[in-house]
Amino acid sequence: MNTHPKLTLVGAGPGDPDLITIKGVKALQSADVVLYDALVHPDLLQYAPKAVHVPVGKRAGESSVSQDTINHLIVEHALKGKGKHVVRLKGGDPFVFARGFEEISYAEKFGIETAVVIGISSVMLPGYYGIPLTIRGVNQCFGVVTATTSEGTLSEDVIRAAECAPSTIIFMGLKKLPEIVAHYQSFGRGSLPVAIISNGSLDHVGVISGTVDTIVAIASERQPEAPALLIFGEGAAYARAIDQQVDQLKWQVEIA
Amino acid sequence: MNTHPKLTLVGAGPGDPDLITIKGVKALQSADVVLYDALVHPDLLQYAPKAVHVPVGKRAGESSVSQDTINHLIVEHALKGKGKHVVRLKGGDPFVFARGFEEISYAEKFGIETAVVIGISSVMLPGYYGIPLTIRGVNQCFGVVTATTSEGTLSEDVIRAAECAPSTIIFMGLKKLPEIVAHYQSFGRGSLPVAIISNGSLDHVGVISGTVDTIVAIASERQPEAPALLIFGEGAAYARAIDQQVDQLKWQVEIA
Repeated sequence: MNTHPKLTLVGAGPGDPDLITIKGVKALQSADVVLYDALVHPDLLQYAPKAVHVPVGKRAGESSVSQDTINHLIVEHALKGKGKHVVRLKGGDPFVFARGFEEISYAEKFGIETAVVIGISSVMLPGYYGIPLTIRGVNQCFGVVTATTSEGTLSEDVIRAAECAPSTIIFMGLKKLPEIVAHYQSFGRGSLPVAIISNGSLDHVGVISGTVDTIVAIASERQPEAPALLIFGEGAAYARAIDQQVDQLKWQVEIA
Repeated sequence: MNTHPKLTLVGAGPGDPDLITIKGVKALQSADVVLYDALVHPDLLQYAPKAVHVPVGKRAGESSVSQDTINHLIVEHALKGKGKHVVRLKGGDPFVFARGFEEISYAEKFGIETAVVIGISSVMLPGYYGIPLTIRGVNQCFGVVTATTSEGTLSEDVIRAAECAPSTIIFMGLKKLPEIVAHYQSFGRGSLPVAIISNGSLDHVGVISGTVDTIVAIASERQPEAPALLIFGEGAAYARAIDQQVDQLKWQVEIA
């Protein structure tokens, strides 16, 4: 039993429930309330069997609980009684494109103690499929970019990456794939390898790959599901099912 | 007992032993041999009490086991008897600046089955100290760069970042801090927040912060230990001890 209000943001990792950390499990075990995202694997709630489970899922293209409402729910639950321990279980890492910072800042205005348990961001997911983000002698840096601005247009960051970045991970870019590809082509980079990692649902995750010149046709045939991660860079040429547990999870891996 | 040669690369995470994943623990539990880096927390070896433990540590500035020797050790141990399960336990994530790709490729030449358990890269460490890599309305992308080329000179990628990148994580940049700062200043970015996260040893981790104009003097006084991560970007202004377990681990957190 907690004796004061507390919020812990926990990164659940990129899908596979065994990719949560030991520290994340410990936080769940001490939770009174768990507010969880739609992309969080349901098995993870088993670590908090006595806690109240509140879905606050947000998924691309679906109407869902707004950020304001989530902030209010965190505070409301944390301030109940003598104070509750609220675990906010978020897909990936709470601080990478995940608005964890806003949730922490909001809760602290109400005097709620806060903590963060970092998690495996989708940024790490290329490694799951054997895609190195850096290759010795080829590239020693990589960029992480959101494709879509808050106005819905293509981000200038993507255009800069298309011009010269050796290795770029693009979030929320699946719908804009043809537009992104056209920018890479305009800079003469048609042969650059590209991979698309899709985790549209928890039991259908896959990777497809090709080049800037071929990926639109391949994606049109294979129809990867959103949300998806685009990887533009030499490492994408190595996309494959490198993880032995992929089969157990019935994840689909298709390499073009 | 394993009946065929196998190599699993496991990311141990960025220091705190509870930041390994459940999947990493399972791999360790089934290991016959563990080849581990110097930066891996020794407590993690307790998950493989019956395995052979082989240190192959590499630390900045120390002579240590070469990559070629590590590759050979992996193969030698994996091919013993009917085949052993070798777990290669690496700090952070095996695929981000970690040469995991080379180890996998080398082992596969000998017919050794390979697998990867992704881990929390140091790229996620800013979140441990409350530093958001992206802030809604401020920046929607970040870059990850190694400061030092294989020739020991400052990477061109750092100079490009100094010119215009909103948020950049720089690996292996501590010794070159004055040089890096001079580039940021030459582009008129003296007021940009900077943080330095140091995990030079496992029981002395800290964060210091300032701006481009002040960080060299602050670092000169506080003497952060290598290896360290530099963060240049607005998020660095929020550096603090956000994690309640930092105290338990006697980690030092100093904010200027």
